[in-house]
Amino acid sequence: MTSLSTEEAASLGSGASFWTTKAVGDIPAIFVTDGPHGLRKQTGSADHLGLAGSVPATCFPPLAGLGQSWDPELIHRVGEALGDECQAENVHVLLGPGINIKRSPLGGRNFEYLSEDPHVSGVLGAAWVSGVQSRGVGTSLKHYALNNQEHDRMRATSDVDPRPLREVYLRGFRRVVSEADPWTIMCSYNRVNGVQVSEDPFLLTQVLRDEWGYEGVVVSDWGAVRDRVASVAAGLDLTMPYDGGTGDAEVVAAVESGALDRAHVERAAHRVEALARKATAAQIDGATYDVNEHHALAREAAARSIVLLKNEDRMLPLAPAGSIAVIGSFAEKPRYQGGGSSHVNPTRVDVPLDEIRAAAGDASVTFAQGFTVDGSGAQSALVSEAVDAAAAADAAIVFLGLDARQESEGFDREHIDLPVEQIELLVAVGSVQPNVVVVLSHGGVLDLRDVAAHAPAILDGNLLGQAGGGAIADVLFGVVSPSGKLTETVPLRIQDTPAYLDFPGEHQHVRYSEGLYVGYRWYDARDLEVAFPFGHGLSYTTFEYGQASTRVDADTVVVALDVINTGHRAGREVVQAYVAVPDSEQVRVPRALAGFASVDLQPGERREVEIRIDRSDLEYWDVRLDRFVLEGGRYVVSVGSSSRDIRTRVEVDLAGDAVSFPLTLDSTMGEVMANPVAAALLTQAMSMPDVPEGDAMGTDMARMMASIPIERTLMFGGGGTREQLEQLLTAANANS
Amino acid sequence: MTSLSTEEAASLGSGASFWTTKAVGDIPAIFVTDGPHGLRKQTGSADHLGLAGSVPATCFPPLAGLGQSWDPELIHRVGEALGDECQAENVHVLLGPGINIKRSPLGGRNFEYLSEDPHVSGVLGAAWVSGVQSRGVGTSLKHYALNNQEHDRMRATSDVDPRPLREVYLRGFRRVVSEADPWTIMCSYNRVNGVQVSEDPFLLTQVLRDEWGYEGVVVSDWGAVRDRVASVAAGLDLTMPYDGGTGDAEVVAAVESGALDRAHVERAAHRVEALARKATAAQIDGATYDVNEHHALAREAAARSIVLLKNEDRMLPLAPAGSIAVIGSFAEKPRYQGGGSSHVNPTRVDVPLDEIRAAAGDASVTFAQGFTVDGSGAQSALVSEAVDAAAAADAAIVFLGLDARQESEGFDREHIDLPVEQIELLVAVGSVQPNVVVVLSHGGVLDLRDVAAHAPAILDGNLLGQAGGGAIADVLFGVVSPSGKLTETVPLRIQDTPAYLDFPGEHQHVRYSEGLYVGYRWYDARDLEVAFPFGHGLSYTTFEYGQASTRVDADTVVVALDVINTGHRAGREVVQAYVAVPDSEQVRVPRALAGFASVDLQPGERREVEIRIDRSDLEYWDVRLDRFVLEGGRYVVSVGSSSRDIRTRVEVDLAGDAVSFPLTLDSTMGEVMANPVAAALLTQAMSMPDVPEGDAMGTDMARMMASIPIERTLMFGGGGTREQLEQLLTAANANS
Repeated sequence: MTSLSTEEAASLGSGASFWTTKAVGDIPAIFVTDGPHGLRKQTGSADHLGLAGSVPATCFPPLAGLGQSWDPELIHRVGEALGDECQAENVHVLLGPGINIKRSPLGGRNFEYLSEDPHVSGVLGAAWVSGVQSRGVGTSLKHYALNNQEHDRMRATSDVDPRPLREVYLRGFRRVVSEADPWTIMCSYNRVNGVQVSEDPFLLTQVLRDEWGYEGVVVSDWGAVRDRVASVAAGLDLTMPYDGGTGDAEVVAAVESGALDRAHVERAAHRVEALARKATAAQIDGATYDVNEHHALAREAAARSIVLLKNEDRMLPLAPAGSIAVIGSFAEKPRYQGGGSSHVNPTRVDVPLDEIRAAAGDASVTFAQGFTVDGSGAQSALVSEAVDAAAAADAAIVFLGLDARQESEGFDREHIDLPVEQIELLVAVGSVQPNVVVVLSHGGVLDLRDVAAHAPAILDGNLLGQAGGGAIADVLFGVVSPSGKLTETVPLRIQDTPAYLDFPGEHQHVRYSEGLYVGYRWYDARDLEVAFPFGHGLSYTTFEYGQASTRVDADTVVVALDVINTGHRAGREVVQAYVAVPDSEQVRVPRALAGFASVDLQPGERREVEIRIDRSDLEYWDVRLDRFVLEGGRYVVSVGSSSRDIRTRVEVDLAGDAVSFPLTLDSTMGEVMANPVAAALLTQAMSMPDVPEGDAMGTDMARMMASIPIERTLMFGGGGTREQLEQLLTAANANS
Repeated sequence: MTSLSTEEAASLGSGASFWTTKAVGDIPAIFVTDGPHGLRKQTGSADHLGLAGSVPATCFPPLAGLGQSWDPELIHRVGEALGDECQAENVHVLLGPGINIKRSPLGGRNFEYLSEDPHVSGVLGAAWVSGVQSRGVGTSLKHYALNNQEHDRMRATSDVDPRPLREVYLRGFRRVVSEADPWTIMCSYNRVNGVQVSEDPFLLTQVLRDEWGYEGVVVSDWGAVRDRVASVAAGLDLTMPYDGGTGDAEVVAAVESGALDRAHVERAAHRVEALARKATAAQIDGATYDVNEHHALAREAAARSIVLLKNEDRMLPLAPAGSIAVIGSFAEKPRYQGGGSSHVNPTRVDVPLDEIRAAAGDASVTFAQGFTVDGSGAQSALVSEAVDAAAAADAAIVFLGLDARQESEGFDREHIDLPVEQIELLVAVGSVQPNVVVVLSHGGVLDLRDVAAHAPAILDGNLLGQAGGGAIADVLFGVVSPSGKLTETVPLRIQDTPAYLDFPGEHQHVRYSEGLYVGYRWYDARDLEVAFPFGHGLSYTTFEYGQASTRVDADTVVVALDVINTGHRAGREVVQAYVAVPDSEQVRVPRALAGFASVDLQPGERREVEIRIDRSDLEYWDVRLDRFVLEGGRYVVSVGSSSRDIRTRVEVDLAGDAVSFPLTLDSTMGEVMANPVAAALLTQAMSMPDVPEGDAMGTDMARMMASIPIERTLMFGGGGTREQLEQLLTAANANS
């Protein structure tokens, strides 16, 4: 490491321009860009807000879409391609992935995130990071942490209890750090439990460094730093984009006055130095990439990300014959990414209508716009035209979805409804044409009750990137059998969603009142019907599951089962393992995803699938001990095709961690009497009050008294002194 | 006030025996007893736990039942009668009423509490206190505060946010203190936000004394004090039952060491002295009461507390003719109160079966037990016998309910189901007899889906006290037309209840995660179907509501409307006014009860009803200002026969309190630009970055940037310095 003056060290801790760090001595500057489902590398010189247009780059499916593949191998390959594009553009760090939990469907930036589930987020996020970094390009795991909404995102505090903090919101970050070691982690804008994350030693140092052992650079989200000195003290290494013009000097002054330990500044500078040296050393001069190959990969990824929500009477795949009416503006002008800093300037865009025409073989294809995306214009004429087209065809493919301007970084959604004119269109089309396939384009979850009521088949495209058009055609005509699975529950109504009453909070406070019950954990715990459950996704073929078995391999529970393709087409199944601890002494969710695996099967083929469940996916956070604990006892593993389509169950007994809670004066009568040693000593030594058995108080007196702390019995004439009680408990603890 | 030594003052601060305070000098001791729906005055000498049998006393309906009357005048008279019984038994303070909010139907002590709604709890609690105290006998408003469950009640902390704390949980206490000035207030066992209530200066001094101006005695719940010195410092006046044998001395030692201000001890002692002098001065030697008159009042109160949940085809009232089968063990052995410290030894008990026989006139009445309360014995034989009786009769009255041992102080319920054998009985009876009336006896809310599906008429007796049997007969045969209204929502399922996932908490922490959305506020906000809504209760006649109007009278909104009895019987209607603030800038519940009034009407009679709504029932707690605020703007008052049977609406504009929030460096761009003065100054003075209008980032950039705090724009090259920005905001604030 370079020996640095305080000025130099402070200087390394903030950016030189919107997208670059500073060069100091022989320490090189590095270049970073937004993304991350493609590069958003600004053209020309950077403006003050980083808002200018960007160079063309492959627009892969945004993470909300890509996550529906449940495919770490595919995502790793996408990461590799992104890394190659970074090399070609001399980018050292690509600012992603975003793995925040989708707490509410209304979160404006949900389209950039993977899932409502921390296991999916962690596994897929790690695959993405590994992929990019395998090409010598850094990533920035973001937005750490609890940045689950856009509303007032720079001031609001996410007020969360310790168990959901650890078991839901930090869990994915922990997995990515331990499995993929991202070169940087981006601290989020918001506050957590009242503390600005950019100034929070708990999140930036205690959890990230001391507990998880992270050695990389913590970079601020752009503009997330309020108080540079406090940030450095808390463990932030790099303030971006600038230091507000005065921050470097403030850091130096604070060191000189003794208000800030120089060691903090130096450590941060050396982390930035290490990053800069690593990144520039890995840089490949003159690198290029094959735009067509990347487009093909984007198409493969998009096809694997499509979820077949519904397919009555096996309406899909469509035969390439007869006549097909393609309806809906999005067929012509596809919606394939969201707005804001992740917005990519694509190398090209597949138009679904064109791709359908190309794939439709002998079928004749007509098109009607059906609606305008902004709701303007003569809606009734558009509907009439669409109805005519649908009536004249053998089948109708109706493209519905949300305008990009409704889904963006910077603000949240206000509802989960499709525009009313789109529903009217669908109903009208359905009234003349029974064979309706709906294709959905949207970043956030939709209320699909109307769509499900009027369409016998639904393909959920989510956001599919620039090659989505071709991917949709591939799935519609069966070139690809769909295998995507929902990473987010589709509820029946926004009123049913877990955070409905506490989103986006009030006066900068957001109470995470649903606690552990995020996503499917909520719908399961409250036994609520949903439109489509977490993990749901149909195939053009069918799969049978054999009986699962388990074996324990060190810290891993290995679940094995046979899966058989019982249909007539090749297909891929994502097999999901959910864990419950029915006899737990802790509060537990009804089931939590703990592992998953995919299998590709030819018709009639049977293969064994193995799902490895990590101990970290079985532990709970104990608030008494302030650490993760593996509880001993019976674990029920439910294996299925979705969170609500469980096909086989198996139980496994785990030894668990040894934890003990000694009796104290604050232990209750019930707790003391439940300990045989203590009960014997207590009965022997103290004159416990006689509990009348009669009906004087119309209740079970022993039960009523069980919750009295043992010390408090002194007040009820239990006899003896506090000291005697303490001795007795000490003896009981020693002999228990 | 008497001049007291520190020892004397300390000594006055704890009990002499289980039920008495100490006499010091000429300061008399006083005697208190449990209750409060009757006296539980122990016979003989008090044992160490206060568990012995008690003298006979009138068992009025427990508050859960009595509250269903929604009748402050009646409750005041019950209070007077209770006061008279105290005088006759030389009791100075009756330990009640309990007005804790029914947060979950599972709360074991809900039968002692009034409602899920703080307005009902406050108004009716104040009437009860005024009634008792009008007889020169003190009360103890309990359990202050947030003692909403029995599980681990001495250790658990109720973790609650400021708004629900103020707007829901403390609101009823505030009303009773200000309207009825209870002689004592009982501090609860639990902790609130981590602090033991008996040691909490916030609750015991800041809120109660400083904000509400309470001057009476704060007494501990029995055994609620852990640390006597900390309790005295926090504002607790009287530790009961004893001081643990050492507390008085600890207080003296703490004063001597300077650890405790002597003023605290003295003030507490003088409050106890004032109470003792007031109570003994008001004592009436040789007082007696008329047991029969009190029984008659208990019957009147019970009849008014019965809620007619359902009455298909006007099955009720029953004609006193033909043959009637009375079925169910509770008809013979009534369930009329709960277990624990409130358990009263009644002067006599009306047996429903006997009262029905007496009221049935020429009708023949048969009886079948139907089930055993504890589920023991040959259930099928009992059902057969009941079915035979029902088949042979013109109608069946089926008494269902919960065993007293399932509902008690000291532990919570585990479900809200009726015993399965009772449901089986009902189904069997219903299969042979269409005319089934179910009469329910229970302290806590029940899942009534099965009952509602199989019984055309349902009378909800809740708990009715010793004269409930006669009251039930009065209502069954139309001697009294029912007028009770539910004070608690009957949900469809326990899974639908607001606190379902956070009750009774974990490891001593109970997160009040439902926030403001307690009771009907939750079901309304989440648009959930319920079995029977809050405020529901039918009559044997029908009422029409005229258009409501409002006028503002100082701090009160007066709502007036005509109510007309449009049926053929005399009846009483409880008219309820709910308030919404649709344009509020605060989070608001969809509607909150703000006032109610009753009216007795002969057939065809029309009368004007006035409901006075206090400003305190319109205010919200502002977390920024840490005080209640009346928001200016449009208030919608919905007047109806239940919370979901709104008959007329009226709007009123209120000026509201003047509150302002000056712009600061932490104000967002959006907030600053929304202030015309600031916007003009800013545009003039600073070179704000140009926001491109194009599609470079696929979003509305101005909207995306609106949430950036103005100070943070410096980091985005906004130009100017922090000092210039501050000057600009100061100028804007001065001129806005």
